[in-house]
Amino acid sequence: MNISQTVERFKAYTDRFNAIHQALNLFSWDMAVGAPKGGTESRAKYVGILSAEEFSMRVSDEMKGFLDALEPYGESLDEITKAMLRICRRYYYAYKKIPVEEMREYSELLPRAEAVWEKAREENDFASFAPILDRIIRYQKKFVEYRGYEGHPYNTLLDDYEPGMTVEKLDVFFNRMKEVIVPLLKRIAASDGRQDKTGFVNRLVPVDKQRAVAGLLMKTVGFDLNRGMLKESAHPFTNDFGKNDVRITTHYHENAFLSSFYSVLHECGHAIYEQNKMDTIADTILDTGISMGVHESQSRFYENIIGRSEAFWEYIYNGLMEILGDDFKDVSARQFYEAANVAKPSLIRIEADELTYCLHIMVRYEIEKQLFSGDFDVNELPGVWNAKMREYLGVEPAADSAGILQDIHWSDGSFGYFPSYAIGNAYAAQILHVMRRDIPVENCVRNGDFKRIQEWLTEKIHRFGSLKTPSELMEELCGETLNAEYYAEYLTEKFSAVYNRSGVLILPRPHIRQNYFC
Amino acid sequence: MNISQTVERFKAYTDRFNAIHQALNLFSWDMAVGAPKGGTESRAKYVGILSAEEFSMRVSDEMKGFLDALEPYGESLDEITKAMLRICRRYYYAYKKIPVEEMREYSELLPRAEAVWEKAREENDFASFAPILDRIIRYQKKFVEYRGYEGHPYNTLLDDYEPGMTVEKLDVFFNRMKEVIVPLLKRIAASDGRQDKTGFVNRLVPVDKQRAVAGLLMKTVGFDLNRGMLKESAHPFTNDFGKNDVRITTHYHENAFLSSFYSVLHECGHAIYEQNKMDTIADTILDTGISMGVHESQSRFYENIIGRSEAFWEYIYNGLMEILGDDFKDVSARQFYEAANVAKPSLIRIEADELTYCLHIMVRYEIEKQLFSGDFDVNELPGVWNAKMREYLGVEPAADSAGILQDIHWSDGSFGYFPSYAIGNAYAAQILHVMRRDIPVENCVRNGDFKRIQEWLTEKIHRFGSLKTPSELMEELCGETLNAEYYAEYLTEKFSAVYNRSGVLILPRPHIRQNYFC
Repeated sequence: MNISQTVERFKAYTDRFNAIHQALNLFSWDMAVGAPKGGTESRAKYVGILSAEEFSMRVSDEMKGFLDALEPYGESLDEITKAMLRICRRYYYAYKKIPVEEMREYSELLPRAEAVWEKAREENDFASFAPILDRIIRYQKKFVEYRGYEGHPYNTLLDDYEPGMTVEKLDVFFNRMKEVIVPLLKRIAASDGRQDKTGFVNRLVPVDKQRAVAGLLMKTVGFDLNRGMLKESAHPFTNDFGKNDVRITTHYHENAFLSSFYSVLHECGHAIYEQNKMDTIADTILDTGISMGVHESQSRFYENIIGRSEAFWEYIYNGLMEILGDDFKDVSARQFYEAANVAKPSLIRIEADELTYCLHIMVRYEIEKQLFSGDFDVNELPGVWNAKMREYLGVEPAADSAGILQDIHWSDGSFGYFPSYAIGNAYAAQILHVMRRDIPVENCVRNGDFKRIQEWLTEKIHRFGSLKTPSELMEELCGETLNAEYYAEYLTEKFSAVYNRSGVLILPRPHIRQNYFC
Repeated sequence: MNISQTVERFKAYTDRFNAIHQALNLFSWDMAVGAPKGGTESRAKYVGILSAEEFSMRVSDEMKGFLDALEPYGESLDEITKAMLRICRRYYYAYKKIPVEEMREYSELLPRAEAVWEKAREENDFASFAPILDRIIRYQKKFVEYRGYEGHPYNTLLDDYEPGMTVEKLDVFFNRMKEVIVPLLKRIAASDGRQDKTGFVNRLVPVDKQRAVAGLLMKTVGFDLNRGMLKESAHPFTNDFGKNDVRITTHYHENAFLSSFYSVLHECGHAIYEQNKMDTIADTILDTGISMGVHESQSRFYENIIGRSEAFWEYIYNGLMEILGDDFKDVSARQFYEAANVAKPSLIRIEADELTYCLHIMVRYEIEKQLFSGDFDVNELPGVWNAKMREYLGVEPAADSAGILQDIHWSDGSFGYFPSYAIGNAYAAQILHVMRRDIPVENCVRNGDFKRIQEWLTEKIHRFGSLKTPSELMEELCGETLNAEYYAEYLTEKFSAVYNRSGVLILPRPHIRQNYFC
């Protein structure tokens, strides 16, 4: 067989497990948007089998054969084949050591766990979730042992979501963020109590109006509804089946319409990334975002950097008022902007403001790090959670449903995922810094020219899908990988601006080492 | 390996392709309830690959190995294993001869065809559907050649949906039905024009009220919403993922609420069948209805025999009026009953009355039979369709969207399926005949004791899933297989009763050969 035949067969092979992967995606989507509860066990069986099929194909002797056969051709291969090989090789050597049977058991556990978690959260009953959570963590710990690790065991999981990320790098990152955020938050807390003037955000907005707002936002930022859709689920998320079918969800709270407002912008960021990959990689294993960190940089860019800017509120104000009608006619664009940027310690991560968000991630990061560094008692976790919330945010949940039970992530085994949110925020600030050199970002937003921003992101990031590694992408775009300083500067500037009008806060610019720039 | 190990491995193997089958089910469900249009091609790729995977597994050497290894144990195996072997053997020897690559191409074609059909129907443009329909038929004809056939080539396809069914049997069946229905219809047409008094069925009923009606009906007949759901799609259907997840759809027409009313009852019939299989076969390849004919007997039982009876209208009337409110307060239960049983030639199969329904099926049966008996020109089909409609029903569609484009079936390659509807009607009448010996059916309906009916059906039919063949089931239950006479008698009695009050129609009982009875 000649090399091009081998490449063709290799690609066809990746297509086969990718189809199974997409089927699993669809089961996951289906369960989140309302599959019958009574079918949970049955679907767990199917999902378990299909996960094992995908897994077996990715760690099969046939895969090893392709890797070995194509290895010698290295640099002479086209970039698509090279990237596919990189991804397959990485997966093969990471997971080869996990027995298929254990992976199957584990995969069968997850959909059940999700149902248990949902019920536990509803009923504020951590004890009912604890046993299955314990099993998930023990499987993951066993898998890390099988897979091996360098430095901290948790590094193996971090690397799954952000290749190259380590506890060592994140400890530095979070320490720096804490240094900046905690004093900033204290100064804000001591300011004029603007949050008291933002009670209008809790006015009733019926779900049908919120749906119209979601429609306005999707249209504004350019989420293509011919190749996507919006549905409702308990926890907002994005699910992509390749660039031509990208689905997002939101959750409407009648007395907190900004919750869905920002969820939609957040998921649109993920979705626009997925929808704008180059056609040559459509429906292949490269037709998906490069890493969770880069993914979150895009969602945070749309949610926070665009969506929480004063320019955005100036632009969106009229369209929004047409939908909200008289109920909000006493509220100005500036007031919406300020309300969207109230910084205040709170309990729920997905409702947290941009400033305190990072601290919520720290709580989870530190717990996960600890879970994977030695033995643990799952029953102690709520106590640990609450103590850390008190320490970093100064607030403590009265109920676990507003504490350790709030996130879906652990029920689906996504340990190592949470830090991506903070990494994404930091990347977003780094990307903004570079984008500003090319285009007048604030003006584009103020004038509703989101197409220009999207085209820049497509050119620099979106089109590549998984062709590049995150470090290649960030290095080429920004001249460096993760650097806390841009995010620190962004937060300081932003919250100084928000809180400055009242004259209370005047913050110094943080020190940025100019040699980090590209 | 000992026999019980081989059986275990065989069952695990069937579980694997069943999981892929369920994934394909889910893609199909997802596309019908509103997947993004732009993703059609991408999903076609995934569906094509997964169909090929399922197909390969069902005709693999490994499957042949199981069949050969277990063959010698024949009658000594438990009934579940035996039924699984029967199904796998049947499939293996039927499809082994179709090349995997052609099956893959064909499977990729179908989701595209469905999208093309939907658009063609909307735009009344048969020409845009013709090329892809032509390709589907030519694939199916080629497959029949590969598979072989006895007698008429179409027999192979009939057998897919109703094992043992042939053109020879159906010609007899349809000829008899024509003999009974055509004169009955003529006498009704010459009657007092009751249909003129049923204009209330076109009064506006907003979709939210129709949803409430659907809820009432599902609750009434016992469709378990913990293990099922109702959504909307262009064409109502039932989709099951095993007994614990059974989904139905309907389509609401604001000015024809009885359309959804009877769709829901029809799909509930399918769904109740699926939900009431025995637990020991849950989530296996036996966890599905035995044949399309038996399936349709259940849907028609709920839709027509129960739902279009005077007893049902007496029972449901009060609950329905609570939802419909004052808009229908001038309409009595008897008037609803009569309106639900207006017999009148019409264009659309799924809106057709119980009496003329069979003629709609005849039109499709004869066209399909002809398509598979020699060459054909797809462009001539609308003309053939219209001519047959004129001949049997005396009406002719002005537009193909109300003619040959009305059904989804050909776009998904389901040739041989349509006759099942008529077979199902006939089976339903045969089953009613037997049921009446055990329980007072009309009284149960009048008193809302649908549980007793459902329990009888579960005991005699539902619980077996695919454990028995349709002929075994019908022989054991009724002492005979397909027999047109019960259905002929049922229709004659029913429509005599409906049209009798006005004194116009007095119909003789048809001749039934008593020795057909068990």
